[in-house]
Amino acid sequence: MKQISILGSTGSIGTQTLDVIANDPRQYQVAGLAAGTNVQLLVEQALRFHPKKVSLATRDAAEEARGMLPAGIKVLYGEEGLDEVAADTGADCVVTALVGSQGLRSTMAAINAGARIGLANKETLVTAGHLVMRQAADKGVDILPVDSEHSAIYQCLNGENRAEVKKITLTASGGSFRDKSRQELEGVTVEQALRHPNWSMGSKITIDSATMVNKGLEVIEAHWLFGAGYDDLDVLLHPESIIHSYVEFVDNSVIAQLGWPDMRIPIQYALSYPHRRPSPTEPLDLAQLGSLNFRKMDFERYPCLRMAFECGRAGQSAPAVYNAANEVAVARFLSGEISFLAIEQVIERVLSRHEACNLPDLAAIAEVDGWARREAAALNI
Amino acid sequence: MKQISILGSTGSIGTQTLDVIANDPRQYQVAGLAAGTNVQLLVEQALRFHPKKVSLATRDAAEEARGMLPAGIKVLYGEEGLDEVAADTGADCVVTALVGSQGLRSTMAAINAGARIGLANKETLVTAGHLVMRQAADKGVDILPVDSEHSAIYQCLNGENRAEVKKITLTASGGSFRDKSRQELEGVTVEQALRHPNWSMGSKITIDSATMVNKGLEVIEAHWLFGAGYDDLDVLLHPESIIHSYVEFVDNSVIAQLGWPDMRIPIQYALSYPHRRPSPTEPLDLAQLGSLNFRKMDFERYPCLRMAFECGRAGQSAPAVYNAANEVAVARFLSGEISFLAIEQVIERVLSRHEACNLPDLAAIAEVDGWARREAAALNI
Repeated sequence: MKQISILGSTGSIGTQTLDVIANDPRQYQVAGLAAGTNVQLLVEQALRFHPKKVSLATRDAAEEARGMLPAGIKVLYGEEGLDEVAADTGADCVVTALVGSQGLRSTMAAINAGARIGLANKETLVTAGHLVMRQAADKGVDILPVDSEHSAIYQCLNGENRAEVKKITLTASGGSFRDKSRQELEGVTVEQALRHPNWSMGSKITIDSATMVNKGLEVIEAHWLFGAGYDDLDVLLHPESIIHSYVEFVDNSVIAQLGWPDMRIPIQYALSYPHRRPSPTEPLDLAQLGSLNFRKMDFERYPCLRMAFECGRAGQSAPAVYNAANEVAVARFLSGEISFLAIEQVIERVLSRHEACNLPDLAAIAEVDGWARREAAALNI
Repeated sequence: MKQISILGSTGSIGTQTLDVIANDPRQYQVAGLAAGTNVQLLVEQALRFHPKKVSLATRDAAEEARGMLPAGIKVLYGEEGLDEVAADTGADCVVTALVGSQGLRSTMAAINAGARIGLANKETLVTAGHLVMRQAADKGVDILPVDSEHSAIYQCLNGENRAEVKKITLTASGGSFRDKSRQELEGVTVEQALRHPNWSMGSKITIDSATMVNKGLEVIEAHWLFGAGYDDLDVLLHPESIIHSYVEFVDNSVIAQLGWPDMRIPIQYALSYPHRRPSPTEPLDLAQLGSLNFRKMDFERYPCLRMAFECGRAGQSAPAVYNAANEVAVARFLSGEISFLAIEQVIERVLSRHEACNLPDLAAIAEVDGWARREAAALNI
């Protein structure tokens, strides 16, 4: 049985990971669970899956959980607790689905412990791809992407030679506003922005889909995961989100991965790799679907995607600044403080004030991240 | 440099194989060429590619060719000549693109010689899949399919575990009459039948596309090539012929291979496998294409496909009879002797008179094949 730890077990990816595990109980065992402050749900999960260790964000949350859990489950908290769940549960695979910089630190801890990583934390590669990939290579650790696009690419590359890849194309649904012009975006509301056509996700990532920041972050992730240069990465609008991404090889043969939009497929793949296991998801039915549609990506319509490519090419600290500025801008939009179109302005202005610098360690990343957040918060837009 | 021999070098697959070789001259060298009676073209090919041996169908044709070729090229003829080109040129890969039973015999000869097979002869697996696959396994020979569908499946299975395959779906353009009802098929002419919407091919295979016999033969081939049961094989109408086929795995993940309809991609793949080489073909552009369409296969509209599944399931001699009866029926249609819809009637009637029997060797296959041809020719329809 594979031992699995989940960092961020009460979020969307975390709960779906537990769904996958529950569906194949002879294959997987939960070794550790870490969450933020959702004590109730974490306790429920722990009672059901019997991990060795759980961790919560605060001491108070941990105290509360301890009262509801049997003595055999060690209850931890804070950074140390998180790191212990990440690196010290004997897990074969650690699914890292925490947001923010704690996601990065704990992912590095899990890599150092030699566990396979099921990577669902975008920030990790965007801000620290150079450190993470080097460490993973040093430790001989596989990084299995837990999102539909990168899992698709990973699958398309199975049995292939990386040197024979010509181009990697990530598909993009276009998000909740894909049929609106720039002008129509002027007055859109938070509520409208939160209606994603294909995927049911958290609010941050739903807004990132509408601005195409999400795809921008994915392009940067793909650069690190697959060693692809930015000239060899492309994005295609594909409203149905059925072709999750594809790889073109030097012989002009294209290998694509398809499926209904259901995160349990890439989550399970990250757990079961190099094997595939039966899944409770729906099999794809192309005849029922009738057609798949494609449109060229418009970088003027989606300036955040253009900026992501620019930051990727600039390298060093630029992607970290892009990511941090966006996080603050999205929070300001969700709170009603700024308009939808102001998100891109915040990112653009913070980037314009930044001079890319080297990021030799996590402390340097945290510093640049903090600077970009302060700038983005202070901007009067 | 890989040594390549081509059986059927003057046909559509043969000439395109030489295109692929000409495009990558530091990679491939032509070891042998075999053709039928097109002396002029074979001589041109031999003068350009300098094989060690060539063979033609008849002694007269060989004499004619000998007068035009340098002494260094050995000119052979007949069955023996063909077998020598197939098995005795030191080829690393033999592309077998001959039609009819000579294709089968020479493919077996090449397998016995230990050469990789680039298989473009449908009859080989349809009539003798059990013998060919066993022999290839015994000799440790790879059989690389040279057609878009099976090459697609082969590529989709790269790096995957066969035991984790759930379903293999071959796509079908629907041929020249895909938008006609059964009733509208009553009076169609040979000329209309020869207009295939996507692929430019020989007349036999173009008619086989319109009747869906071609897809039926491909289903039987896929059974042998990939060890798939008939319940795990499916056919989907896909008018654009861009998704060449796809594989669904037990986790409901689908891997597909895509490209413009251009035979040079699967031909080159068969030569270069396990590597991919740059290709002079056009890269796929899904945005330019705009959409891909799919329709459920209608087995009443295409009874020849239904019969192929029935013959595949019956096994033994049934697929050989199906294939032979169809060949004669198509010839009779092309000569104006019978109507388009009579093709399926010929196949159905010959099959109804046949009791499936074991086919232990090539002689038994030839006997059943001959019987079915005589029956199909004699039928008064």
